[in-house]
Amino acid sequence: MAKVLTPRAEDYSQWYNDIVKKAQLAENSAVRGCMVIKPTGYAIWENMKSQLDRMFKDTGHVNAYFPLFVPKSLFEAEEKNAEGFAKECAVVTHYRLRNNPDEKGKLMVDPDARLEEELVVRPTSEAIIWNTYKNWINSYRDLPLLINQWANVVRWEMRTRLFLRTAEFLWQEGHTAHATKEEAIEETKMILDLYADFAENYMAMPVIKGVKTANERFAGADDTYTIEALMQDGKALQAGTSHFLGQNFAKAFEVKFSNSNNKEEYVWATSWGVSTRLMGGLIMTHSDDDGLVVPPKLAATQVVIVPIPKPKDEIDEVAERIMVELKAKGVSVKYDRDAKKRPGFKFAEHELKGVPVRLGIGMRDLEKGVIEVARRDTKEKNSIPVDGVVDHVVQLLDDIQNNLFNKAKAYRDSHITKADSMEEFKSILEEKGGFILAHWDGTTETEIKIKELTKATIRCIPLDNEKEAGQCILTGKPSEQRVLFAKAY
Amino acid sequence: MAKVLTPRAEDYSQWYNDIVKKAQLAENSAVRGCMVIKPTGYAIWENMKSQLDRMFKDTGHVNAYFPLFVPKSLFEAEEKNAEGFAKECAVVTHYRLRNNPDEKGKLMVDPDARLEEELVVRPTSEAIIWNTYKNWINSYRDLPLLINQWANVVRWEMRTRLFLRTAEFLWQEGHTAHATKEEAIEETKMILDLYADFAENYMAMPVIKGVKTANERFAGADDTYTIEALMQDGKALQAGTSHFLGQNFAKAFEVKFSNSNNKEEYVWATSWGVSTRLMGGLIMTHSDDDGLVVPPKLAATQVVIVPIPKPKDEIDEVAERIMVELKAKGVSVKYDRDAKKRPGFKFAEHELKGVPVRLGIGMRDLEKGVIEVARRDTKEKNSIPVDGVVDHVVQLLDDIQNNLFNKAKAYRDSHITKADSMEEFKSILEEKGGFILAHWDGTTETEIKIKELTKATIRCIPLDNEKEAGQCILTGKPSEQRVLFAKAY
Repeated sequence: MAKVLTPRAEDYSQWYNDIVKKAQLAENSAVRGCMVIKPTGYAIWENMKSQLDRMFKDTGHVNAYFPLFVPKSLFEAEEKNAEGFAKECAVVTHYRLRNNPDEKGKLMVDPDARLEEELVVRPTSEAIIWNTYKNWINSYRDLPLLINQWANVVRWEMRTRLFLRTAEFLWQEGHTAHATKEEAIEETKMILDLYADFAENYMAMPVIKGVKTANERFAGADDTYTIEALMQDGKALQAGTSHFLGQNFAKAFEVKFSNSNNKEEYVWATSWGVSTRLMGGLIMTHSDDDGLVVPPKLAATQVVIVPIPKPKDEIDEVAERIMVELKAKGVSVKYDRDAKKRPGFKFAEHELKGVPVRLGIGMRDLEKGVIEVARRDTKEKNSIPVDGVVDHVVQLLDDIQNNLFNKAKAYRDSHITKADSMEEFKSILEEKGGFILAHWDGTTETEIKIKELTKATIRCIPLDNEKEAGQCILTGKPSEQRVLFAKAY
Repeated sequence: MAKVLTPRAEDYSQWYNDIVKKAQLAENSAVRGCMVIKPTGYAIWENMKSQLDRMFKDTGHVNAYFPLFVPKSLFEAEEKNAEGFAKECAVVTHYRLRNNPDEKGKLMVDPDARLEEELVVRPTSEAIIWNTYKNWINSYRDLPLLINQWANVVRWEMRTRLFLRTAEFLWQEGHTAHATKEEAIEETKMILDLYADFAENYMAMPVIKGVKTANERFAGADDTYTIEALMQDGKALQAGTSHFLGQNFAKAFEVKFSNSNNKEEYVWATSWGVSTRLMGGLIMTHSDDDGLVVPPKLAATQVVIVPIPKPKDEIDEVAERIMVELKAKGVSVKYDRDAKKRPGFKFAEHELKGVPVRLGIGMRDLEKGVIEVARRDTKEKNSIPVDGVVDHVVQLLDDIQNNLFNKAKAYRDSHITKADSMEEFKSILEEKGGFILAHWDGTTETEIKIKELTKATIRCIPLDNEKEAGQCILTGKPSEQRVLFAKAY
């Protein structure tokens, strides 16, 4: 089969578009900037969701659902948040269509059905949720309130890319309320750790945990924590954020509680989210010029069995037995029995779709008592005795999961470079890419200037940062630590 | 604890509102007609979702996600569908807010950010999905296409009730495409059976399967199949519908396939859905004046353990052991260890929230080697030997599930009455309520007239209907079968 993807070296951006399309993960829709998530893509997202959901529940969170719409007057209550999102809000102004008297069979917005107050389609739900929490929180006994929501949100983006930046996207948003500042900060950090755990141990995508600069903070937050990943083209991807919201929303929505001394205080808040953007991160961290590579823990199908050259009773029998045994061990497996397609075609197809392990069962191999086992990540093939194949595959799935993480980590680690001057900074960006650790004077002005000059932004101030005296690469002013720069998605 | 709910006999409608509120299932939001689904309610919905999702997947369906918005020009393409939903569409007309120059801190819709084409917030997704299927379907090899979506939809209802009728609701919508009419009809009916299976065997809610009259059909369908349940106040609830869409959407969106003879044909379609409305049905089928009653298979917490009168090492130890054993058997269990609340308060609380089984562990009982087991459905209490309590509870959960179904079925069966004249029809409606089987002349005119006179509608023509010659109760014209009438939610 001819190469169906533009090679990464030729055009990384086109390679990404190709893979999303050819592996049938998602496509653009008739609605500007909104995507259709196709079954193959959605199955991976479902696996992500169910694992994250388990992790949220294991840490004491419960799910709920809040309205899609936010009345404008609530939306504008927390001013910074409103200001931050106002420019990308889809707004519902009418609640009815009617027949267009001038064009038969066509509809028009009914001018008599104008809403008294416009409704914003939620770009994020702090406003509607804190307006609700006001009625749920009276006393310290009602705290902490640890709620998550799985939902769709809309941010009217001008330049969109499938999964990475779309007008509508799917996400989870946690919104918690606490009696003390310390507890809220602890929650913010605990969730950051949970996100990092998920990214590294399920997505096999190494991340750097850090805190955002004031300039890159979520609108309405006192502090934004982030996990930052590195894609294969040397650009960073913000993969998840956890916000300490201080008392900003509590004050905007008058959410107070009486503490154990019966004194009224404003509630402390956090919010945090990851979205279908993670799909973009997953694709770009592992995939290659032959197609998608999915870590076994998130693959919709972990193992595919292909009869060689086509189905036959003896082959079917072995395949069925292996399937039963694999399923009993919790492995998802499919038998690609279609007699109309040649093995080579199937191999390419399953490679394109990123199935981690492929078993090829042929009569000649069976006579020798072996089965061909191919792993997607390294493309290695081995003949494995039929009797041991199930255990081998279970172990192999683990190995692939680890190998993907280690490979991504080695790439990421080799792409964290120190720069001590603007020239060095620029030449690293141009020639090597990746993360750059550099001194910065701590001002938003300098941060913006560096962005203008290089398109690189401060991804975060890493949490485990070493203190090291130095001088800002732009202004030469004193700095007490390096911060993490990169060009980013 | 004083009664917290209005008794059903006094005011059924108020009882429903009370229970939704006091059991903390849902509440009205700041957005007209939109609800907040609270954690206790959402946990039940999650259980419904995951069971339905399993059933859809077991029957070969996959999940995907389509955009929230439908461009007006696509929305109006299938005329009957558009006409049916036009009057309840929320419409996005703008994509940006800006500061209001006349009022500091306030925002206004930016008149410069008017969309060229208005976007309808999906009231249902046939239009956007069939516009997408057009590109997915070329040949008979692409069929059948069996896709489901879990999503929120918006229908601008004027009179709303929590769960039963809300402007935004959560649902699943299946959209399938087939090569032949027969296959599409088979799918429509298979899903109806699946819904009935779910309603009866998980929700413990008996349903009557039937087909809607032309007047009650989904806008754009050739046939609408329905499951109809009966609530405790004698009103019917349409609990799920499965539509045979013929080639209507295929024609509106030009979706053709080449058949095995290489001839082009229009595709045949189905769509089907159940929504958070099922929560209303669940509540009204089983609950009583003391609160919610949830069938064990859908309860978020199946068993609660209460220490009597308060926690103590010996009690904790027994409770922990029972919890471990119950969890090992797949039973969800909580230990209500809160020392600040009295047992009586806790009992009432768990009754209100519908936990199917309560274990009371007290020192005096323990000395006798027994534990008090109370079932929510009948309020029966029994002393059960500690050693046998786990097996007893597992069996009891089954018994409760069956008892709830049988009780609801007995009520439903005793509320299907035949009427042979309009007087009889009216008096049954007024005095007894429930379903009425009556002859109808088959015309929409008569159907509407009966509705005007009595507020009762034809719920369906039952699938297993006996043919029986008779005369229409309104017009006296000949009829070949009775149809099922009721007042409905």
